Amino acid sequence: MNKTYEALSSLLERTMALQTSLVLFEWDNETLAPEDAGSYTSRVIGLLSQEYYRNITGDEMEKAIEACEKEEDLHDVQRAIVKAAKEAREDLICIPAEEYRDNAQLVAEAGRIWSKAKKDEDFDSFAPTLEKVIGFRKKFASYRKKEGQKLYDTMLNEFEKDFNEELLDEFFNQLKTEIVPLLKEIMEKGKTIDDSFLIGGYPVDKQKKMAEFLAEYVGFDFKKGVLSVSAHPFTTNLHNHDVRITTSYHDKMDVSMFSVIHEAGHGLYELGISDEITQTPLGQGTSMGMHESQSRFFENIIGRNEAFWEPIYGKLIELYPDKLKDIPLKKFIEAINKVEPNFIRTEADELTYSLHILIRYELEKMIIEEDIDLKELPKLWADKYEEYLGVRPQKFSEGILQDIHWSQSSFGYFPSYALGNAFGAQLYYHMKKEMDFDELLRTGKISVIREYLREHVHKYGKMKTSREILKDVTGEDFNPDYFIQYLKEKYRKLYDLS
Amino acid sequence: MNKTYEALSSLLERTMALQTSLVLFEWDNETLAPEDAGSYTSRVIGLLSQEYYRNITGDEMEKAIEACEKEEDLHDVQRAIVKAAKEAREDLICIPAEEYRDNAQLVAEAGRIWSKAKKDEDFDSFAPTLEKVIGFRKKFASYRKKEGQKLYDTMLNEFEKDFNEELLDEFFNQLKTEIVPLLKEIMEKGKTIDDSFLIGGYPVDKQKKMAEFLAEYVGFDFKKGVLSVSAHPFTTNLHNHDVRITTSYHDKMDVSMFSVIHEAGHGLYELGISDEITQTPLGQGTSMGMHESQSRFFENIIGRNEAFWEPIYGKLIELYPDKLKDIPLKKFIEAINKVEPNFIRTEADELTYSLHILIRYELEKMIIEEDIDLKELPKLWADKYEEYLGVRPQKFSEGILQDIHWSQSSFGYFPSYALGNAFGAQLYYHMKKEMDFDELLRTGKISVIREYLREHVHKYGKMKTSREILKDVTGEDFNPDYFIQYLKEKYRKLYDLS
Repeated sequence: MNKTYEALSSLLERTMALQTSLVLFEWDNETLAPEDAGSYTSRVIGLLSQEYYRNITGDEMEKAIEACEKEEDLHDVQRAIVKAAKEAREDLICIPAEEYRDNAQLVAEAGRIWSKAKKDEDFDSFAPTLEKVIGFRKKFASYRKKEGQKLYDTMLNEFEKDFNEELLDEFFNQLKTEIVPLLKEIMEKGKTIDDSFLIGGYPVDKQKKMAEFLAEYVGFDFKKGVLSVSAHPFTTNLHNHDVRITTSYHDKMDVSMFSVIHEAGHGLYELGISDEITQTPLGQGTSMGMHESQSRFFENIIGRNEAFWEPIYGKLIELYPDKLKDIPLKKFIEAINKVEPNFIRTEADELTYSLHILIRYELEKMIIEEDIDLKELPKLWADKYEEYLGVRPQKFSEGILQDIHWSQSSFGYFPSYALGNAFGAQLYYHMKKEMDFDELLRTGKISVIREYLREHVHKYGKMKTSREILKDVTGEDFNPDYFIQYLKEKYRKLYDLS
Repeated sequence: MNKTYEALSSLLERTMALQTSLVLFEWDNETLAPEDAGSYTSRVIGLLSQEYYRNITGDEMEKAIEACEKEEDLHDVQRAIVKAAKEAREDLICIPAEEYRDNAQLVAEAGRIWSKAKKDEDFDSFAPTLEKVIGFRKKFASYRKKEGQKLYDTMLNEFEKDFNEELLDEFFNQLKTEIVPLLKEIMEKGKTIDDSFLIGGYPVDKQKKMAEFLAEYVGFDFKKGVLSVSAHPFTTNLHNHDVRITTSYHDKMDVSMFSVIHEAGHGLYELGISDEITQTPLGQGTSMGMHESQSRFFENIIGRNEAFWEPIYGKLIELYPDKLKDIPLKKFIEAINKVEPNFIRTEADELTYSLHILIRYELEKMIIEEDIDLKELPKLWADKYEEYLGVRPQKFSEGILQDIHWSQSSFGYFPSYALGNAFGAQLYYHMKKEMDFDELLRTGKISVIREYLREHVHKYGKMKTSREILKDVTGEDFNPDYFIQYLKEKYRKLYDLS
């Protein structure tokens, strides 16, 4: 290895090791750590984060990066790593250390305050904290933002490079003009789909068996992965040989099934990162949007597809004979695809999901760019739900307080969820040209689909942006038309619309 | 806080945070991490260890310690922390960084080679590696050893301060002259104790329930603790609010019951460390011997006591009615205390256990001080087993290759196990003067015993050595007579010897 690069590489390795330890603590906190450990462990985590910060912002790192930038004898991957390291450093070093620490403390506290406010149905007790969080968020974005860039674009770019408000406005407008009317049409049609059989009488031990089966069936490798239980399902990874997903088990049995396929989709992305870049600044999924595209691709495009269930529905019946023996596959497929506007994003069906995001996107722009009075938020939220989804939340916990994201300062994150759907659909329509997608599902050959995604998306990690991946795979730039087309085709058919 | 001390304190906190992350990785590796994660995660662990090493041996640490040594305005605990930090630093800095790294690599590899050799019943394939391990061990001890100190004493002191070969010779001689004949007498008496009912027909889910009950019953607080499964039971702790124990479930049901009480004993020690010193260099049990005294106190002196089972034996019968409803308590107590010389240390009964340690102690002295040919080890081992226990191992896996310790370079560790038994007995005889021990057990008031140990042993962490604790609690220095007396009283009675 080139000496100049080696010096940087060993600094980066150390930084990555600290980050990996933080990942493990986070995993442990969510899945296992005892109740009273909190404040003591937080202190340890705080100290390790400081170490991480010190490492990445230190002079040694600066010099090593600069030396590598001047070095001519580097190959492409090395060059990309140098660039990523520089960006990671610049994102941190532009923020004064005290402000960085104060914000971290605020965010930790904000999580607790949000959680209590949600439980108490009391938005007012959260609003002043939210205001402070927004203050820091704007300040940090102003430090980071490039000349002439909008503040909200800076925030968006933390989660999705190469995207901006302009592109997103176009995308969300299309959703609004195409999907809101489609939803109305479906609701007016009044076709009733019975999904009551999905609820009740599904013992947790059997759900667990099914969860393990499904994860393995879509290709999640338990030699390199773990499935555990946590309150909110998530995926994390130490490196590409240790990827962990969680689920939770509910009365309504499809919840855990699809959450597992969803998280397995995230997991497959991280398992698919090439060995060359794991444990480097490039060794993660390229963006939140592309990550979400993979999880939702597996959850919806694959997992809610009739062809997927054809070879394995018998297994499900075998597991729950009392519940499912009289339910034909067709009826099961309808039930797991039932459209039902409701208040909670995480419980939304595939069609309405992006409308939940549309609402958050519109509100985030108002919060960041229009400086609206936060007291107005609950009403604005409810109005938009009524307009787009036809339902009006009556409680804060099913309205403005439902998501943790804003308390965590993650303004700019929500759009990724909707982008993920659109990326996935664009990939899907392209893949259908190259393979008989449904036939592969019907014959249990998911590995062909998975390997395609690995080869064209996963292995690159952050070496390409989402838009670069889309261009390289599908031959065209990001194009939301496919997603609209996908939803229309699927749901017009499901709801017998002409 | 004193400014000079604060500077050291913040360096130590950082070091402790790194150590805590290493603890979490170790826990995760043993209980959950996926099979293929190994080499990647090892790399991360190696880097974090290096960070730990850098922190503790760095100039900044040296200066901070020196400044604190000159500072007069420190209270006792602070002074003790400064001293402990200095010792920890000296233990590391005397070893050249490369040798430290080479040894760490060797030991990691030696674990794998030992494990394979054990599986293959092939001592010769392990001997050359063992020789290298011993080489490093001796070299490191020679760096650390104080003027005029024996090499083996230096090794012993890593696990037990204030002890040396002279004291241990006396102790082990007493074991040899008193317990070896007692064991012969018991064997010759030929009283048969039936423990066959402990084997088979104990489903794992019920064993798990019992394990949780017993841990909680002896006072292991699940709000600050976790019980998981691993191949070999162990205890670890992030700090005094997060202590974790493991067990494994076997066909013979008492194995897991007593392993859980044993590990809970270790756990109670760590949970009992005072808040003031957790996450400092003093915030751990004072020595391996004192740790083992607590675990074996709970396992044997409490857990194998008839009075302990009186209030809860009914619960055990309720859990396993088919197996135990016709077994009276007396018969159960005899069975769980049955003496049976065998090859495996970890499966040994309370009486023979220390003889397994005696053998290892005698061999360690020969290895370290007499430079014996390692090829002789298996024969020496077998001869001693035949002499002291009356059994001669026929396989390496049940002889010289049974323990991982030597492959891990832990020469000097084994004596702690026997010392723990002796410390526990000394504490026990003293406590019996201050409280009606059996009556407390009989009425389920274990908390009184536990609080006594917390108050007199646990809370001090490393602020006192084992011998200081013994002196302060019992009024006399380490005295192995109590242990001999305990074994004689208990086992003469159990085996109807006059």
